[in-house]
Amino acid sequence: MTAEQNGGRVTLPAETGQETTVAEMARKWGADHIRDSDGTELSDELLALGYDIYSTVCVVRADQEWPKTHHEQLPRKFLMTNRVTATGDTVDIPLMERYFDEKYEIDSYTNPKKVWEVIDRSTGELVDAAQWEYLEDKGIVRVCDVVPYHVYTVNFMVLQIWDSTSMYNHMTNNWTTEHVVSMDPYYQETYDHLMNWFDNWIETHPHTSVVRLTTLAYHFAIDSGPGGTTVFRDWLGYTDTITPPALDDFEKEMGYRLRAEDIVDQGYYNATNRVPSKQYRDWMAFIHKFVVRFGKDLADRAHKAGKKTATFWGDHWAGMEPYSPLYQEIGIDINIGACGDGVSLRRVADAPGPQTSEVRLYPYFFPDVFKPGGDPLGESVRNWVKIRRAMLRNPVDRIGYGGYLSLAAKFPEFVGHVEDLCNQFRTIRMHSKGGESIKSAVKVAVLTAWGSLRSWVNDKGVGSKFGVQNESNLLECLAGLPVEISFISFDDIEAGGIPSDVNVIINNGEAGSAWSGGRHWANETVVTAIREWVDNGGSFLGVGGPSGFEHQGRFFQLSDVMGVERETGSSLSVPGLAFEVNTDHFVLQDNLGTLEFGTQASHVSVCMPGTSVLAASGKHVLMAVRACGKGRAAYMTGLPYGLQNARLLLRTLLWCANREDAVKAWHSTNLLTDCAAFVHSGCMAVINNVDSPQTTTIYDGNGVARECSLAPYEMTWFEL
Amino acid sequence: MTAEQNGGRVTLPAETGQETTVAEMARKWGADHIRDSDGTELSDELLALGYDIYSTVCVVRADQEWPKTHHEQLPRKFLMTNRVTATGDTVDIPLMERYFDEKYEIDSYTNPKKVWEVIDRSTGELVDAAQWEYLEDKGIVRVCDVVPYHVYTVNFMVLQIWDSTSMYNHMTNNWTTEHVVSMDPYYQETYDHLMNWFDNWIETHPHTSVVRLTTLAYHFAIDSGPGGTTVFRDWLGYTDTITPPALDDFEKEMGYRLRAEDIVDQGYYNATNRVPSKQYRDWMAFIHKFVVRFGKDLADRAHKAGKKTATFWGDHWAGMEPYSPLYQEIGIDINIGACGDGVSLRRVADAPGPQTSEVRLYPYFFPDVFKPGGDPLGESVRNWVKIRRAMLRNPVDRIGYGGYLSLAAKFPEFVGHVEDLCNQFRTIRMHSKGGESIKSAVKVAVLTAWGSLRSWVNDKGVGSKFGVQNESNLLECLAGLPVEISFISFDDIEAGGIPSDVNVIINNGEAGSAWSGGRHWANETVVTAIREWVDNGGSFLGVGGPSGFEHQGRFFQLSDVMGVERETGSSLSVPGLAFEVNTDHFVLQDNLGTLEFGTQASHVSVCMPGTSVLAASGKHVLMAVRACGKGRAAYMTGLPYGLQNARLLLRTLLWCANREDAVKAWHSTNLLTDCAAFVHSGCMAVINNVDSPQTTTIYDGNGVARECSLAPYEMTWFEL
Repeated sequence: MTAEQNGGRVTLPAETGQETTVAEMARKWGADHIRDSDGTELSDELLALGYDIYSTVCVVRADQEWPKTHHEQLPRKFLMTNRVTATGDTVDIPLMERYFDEKYEIDSYTNPKKVWEVIDRSTGELVDAAQWEYLEDKGIVRVCDVVPYHVYTVNFMVLQIWDSTSMYNHMTNNWTTEHVVSMDPYYQETYDHLMNWFDNWIETHPHTSVVRLTTLAYHFAIDSGPGGTTVFRDWLGYTDTITPPALDDFEKEMGYRLRAEDIVDQGYYNATNRVPSKQYRDWMAFIHKFVVRFGKDLADRAHKAGKKTATFWGDHWAGMEPYSPLYQEIGIDINIGACGDGVSLRRVADAPGPQTSEVRLYPYFFPDVFKPGGDPLGESVRNWVKIRRAMLRNPVDRIGYGGYLSLAAKFPEFVGHVEDLCNQFRTIRMHSKGGESIKSAVKVAVLTAWGSLRSWVNDKGVGSKFGVQNESNLLECLAGLPVEISFISFDDIEAGGIPSDVNVIINNGEAGSAWSGGRHWANETVVTAIREWVDNGGSFLGVGGPSGFEHQGRFFQLSDVMGVERETGSSLSVPGLAFEVNTDHFVLQDNLGTLEFGTQASHVSVCMPGTSVLAASGKHVLMAVRACGKGRAAYMTGLPYGLQNARLLLRTLLWCANREDAVKAWHSTNLLTDCAAFVHSGCMAVINNVDSPQTTTIYDGNGVARECSLAPYEMTWFEL
Repeated sequence: MTAEQNGGRVTLPAETGQETTVAEMARKWGADHIRDSDGTELSDELLALGYDIYSTVCVVRADQEWPKTHHEQLPRKFLMTNRVTATGDTVDIPLMERYFDEKYEIDSYTNPKKVWEVIDRSTGELVDAAQWEYLEDKGIVRVCDVVPYHVYTVNFMVLQIWDSTSMYNHMTNNWTTEHVVSMDPYYQETYDHLMNWFDNWIETHPHTSVVRLTTLAYHFAIDSGPGGTTVFRDWLGYTDTITPPALDDFEKEMGYRLRAEDIVDQGYYNATNRVPSKQYRDWMAFIHKFVVRFGKDLADRAHKAGKKTATFWGDHWAGMEPYSPLYQEIGIDINIGACGDGVSLRRVADAPGPQTSEVRLYPYFFPDVFKPGGDPLGESVRNWVKIRRAMLRNPVDRIGYGGYLSLAAKFPEFVGHVEDLCNQFRTIRMHSKGGESIKSAVKVAVLTAWGSLRSWVNDKGVGSKFGVQNESNLLECLAGLPVEISFISFDDIEAGGIPSDVNVIINNGEAGSAWSGGRHWANETVVTAIREWVDNGGSFLGVGGPSGFEHQGRFFQLSDVMGVERETGSSLSVPGLAFEVNTDHFVLQDNLGTLEFGTQASHVSVCMPGTSVLAASGKHVLMAVRACGKGRAAYMTGLPYGLQNARLLLRTLLWCANREDAVKAWHSTNLLTDCAAFVHSGCMAVINNVDSPQTTTIYDGNGVARECSLAPYEMTWFEL
């Protein structure tokens, strides 16, 4: 079988003045859609070339005249000042010291006493509003009758006078154009204006086939410090969604008023890594409902004009929530997500709903990579190997690129590689018919504090801030495994128990984080449900700091299930149980001897008899497994991404699920390769994930073997 | 000057049947006292040799007949069972599964319903006593109406039917003698009996000059598991001090009843590393008062008979508390402590009160070290280098050994080395006249949750459980520095502020531990006091997890003072401030380029401007210093013991105290050497701490230099 010959399923960034290049690239890569990008426009000539046209529009930042006369309707946010130590009875707190004055302006429309908060950070107490005043001319809050040497902060409200993406473009690409300002559509007047503006835009864009909404209402969270440095960033954060009328409506709907501190969160700003509070989740749900209404209004207009709608999961995408059931009400036709690895591929591919799925691949055609000495080819190859592996489990419908095509055209090796990549993608899409490849008998549920709403979001650990190379990345391993995967939350289990079709619950992430679950592990309902379920035949795989929360003499709350416990300093003189490393276990077979758990110092000991240690560094347990009633459990101290570790994970899941028998079904023996069977279309792919030739034995679902040799990075297909 | 020629100040373990050896060793080592040891006795011939005689007596385990008829007055303790998961409505909890039945017997004298506790460890709730019953024949507690898959434990009371030290001797030295049983003197009947016994003992020991109490009433905490394995050990623990009448008296005196859980502490047993609870401290104080009364009764009897008293800080020493003011009431004449390093030397040397101070050096003459292939010489040399360094700051009055002299005599190199060691010690004692050497201008206070009660107790970290080689050990560095040292607690600061003569507060230990302080750092009174004091010219040195406790947006509560903050996962996307490493700072001068902070991964960033990073590993700050108002602060992520790090610590303390000018007073430039000036006796020691010849320049208090060459490990003396 050969690749789809006639091209298609590829979106190309076009650029006025580059018409010849566009045509040549479109032919080479088989592009059927062209798009504009930030900073590029499509000439009439391009529009006439006959491609489907994606037109990028970000409604809230499209009209730069409106904000000039409606300054009070700019988007807002709460910021927390630096922490200031009082040295006398009065303390002056500069509001903007930590922030970029080209981006933020102190909100002078809202009564500070109504929404700002002065907090004594030594005690956590709110300072009475009568004790402080805002001195506008000095840009400070002066607080009286303070306790000397207590630390004080102000939560205050700012207008956002420079759109974060516009600012990023200026900073990264040295743009000198006017600063773009976004508008807040929560104001009805602005809302109506933007709808009118959009009606007009639709009328004036007859060539547009797909309205590519980038995205909708509110930018994701980036706080900028002096000079434009980033002082906070959360791609999934809602801190840029604050608006006074919304705060009022929230109070009416929810029966309580959101405090600035509910958003500021001691300065942590409810970062996605944090176990979310009820208040923050309530606010998210409230804003999500508004964004869905706003989006539906836009999508309805586009559909009425015979155009499709796409959303790009980036920029103004706070409140979109593609994994929320409500998202379907918007009426989006194409989900587009940026994609650099298997996790981000699966984030788009696995999203629920009938939407066409499209990934925008890296590298983006921007001068930060496409510059003399840059290595766009290397970046793309590294990404593609991960993406392809995940795509063979669940393919997307389309791929595409963004940026300046003229930049990419200067790298002919990159251009040739993308041609091959596009052909490989179309081959996968053709043979898969858009369906998933067959899965093994195991269904896993990844348990986090966020659940499905944050499906396929990576569990960053503290090492990520310090540039650790070898961080645990279970999701990337998982993204390419032939198992069914869902994401569930503690609330899900509390409300409905453990889904009956799940075989293995994975709890993966650093203790205390949203990924591990933090305080949820002191919720006996959840812990008890899991314990009972495992005892009756379920299984639990803990990675990192699983079930980690200090409570009643245990740190790992499921230490009785996993058989291991982490030392946190309270039981230094309680020795762990003695162990010998069992290197013969089923899950360790078929490995190259280079297993890597991300650290040699887990500080984890065996605490229950019947625990089999599979890897250790001295007294530190790195991996252990344990039978637990009718069920099974496993622990790993970390799982950095690698083909070796992906295979280890697969075998661990099979063992946990008590399905060791399934190891040879739809299986490639050489762990540097993968296979994927699309039974519904009668064919099977085999891929080589490394840059050297490989041979492997492929088993079909009946265990019938077949030998296979592959060139470096080759993908080949068999009929079943 | 030469060493004291006439010997003395050395205690020798004697042994019946080894009279010739004793005489020879006593001559070689210059011993003036001889002693018996566990398992050895002194013959009439030995008693007649003319030495002062130390006679070891442990009153509570001296008479093995009494317990046979007073079984109900054996010492008791609370134990917690294993954690048992209920799988139905009823759960059976075996009481002794985790414990050694040769050591413990379930207490059948006390009504279980009165003192035992069944606890639901999933919720922390106490189970109603009506829900459970003790099935004595099965050795279990059966709990009804439990929540399936909750975890349950029983806190129960046992009699101790084998003394911990006796058991240790049996296990370590393969003793086969009868198991020794201790008695609990809290029972008045036993108390009176022991006093009578002691009166008789005094009468029958006319040769005894010094009654060496080993120690008094209650053994330190060692819990033994099946087969005699150690399942918990805390040399400073009070878990072996429980007795029903004491529980009753405690309730009368304190106004509340101590719960079993107050001692069991979720299974952590209030280990010294834990931040102590109020209830545990109350109990300690209560028992201490009793032990002082018991001890004074014994000491008075000894004194009346014209004998001196000594206590050995080991075995039954719970409740002694030599750093407590009340300890002085006992009337002890000689404090003896085991000593293997500078920290344990200082623990004895620095203890308050007029007592003669004696250290019992390692290795103990036992077959675990003194065996073919053993290296007693190596162990002694390694210890002595550390001990001597500390002894030159504050010498003790005597040294000694314990165990079987006949074993030591088989190692002639060891015997020769101890001869030199004894001479070195006597030389130090002679020149020091028992006084301290001169200190630099810095006075430090080490701040812990325990304060002075746990002076010179090492801050064990989680690594200690896993055999980490490179653990932080600031106290060992500190033990040999020419600075004044005190230990204070958070309670001290809360009650009385910071002592006016302190220059530097050191907070050293892993976050959450008693050494760092844990929840005390959320006490704004203390934090505020330190902040104000530093701002006004004090200084703070944080090592490990200083001021570490998650509270109001900060982990290091004094991050504003130190200028650094640890990432715990809540602010992954808040970058630290950029820094360059300053390698020219005063505190880094005079180092050999091999500074070692115990880890490369501190996860600590700069959070305040004006912070000067002195050492880093990539983005991980390993050491930083900062001016803070009129004061100064420094942070180190750890400080393993080494001569290099000791020097670093000295310079850091001088810098913190704003006394860089004092660096050349009473100073040896070569950091592999040390000097110590005993101004009151007009002489100065210089020591070489390493096994190669060294030269150094010595400065006196006026900065006058003098060159000095030293052989390996040499100690030499100058007149001032």
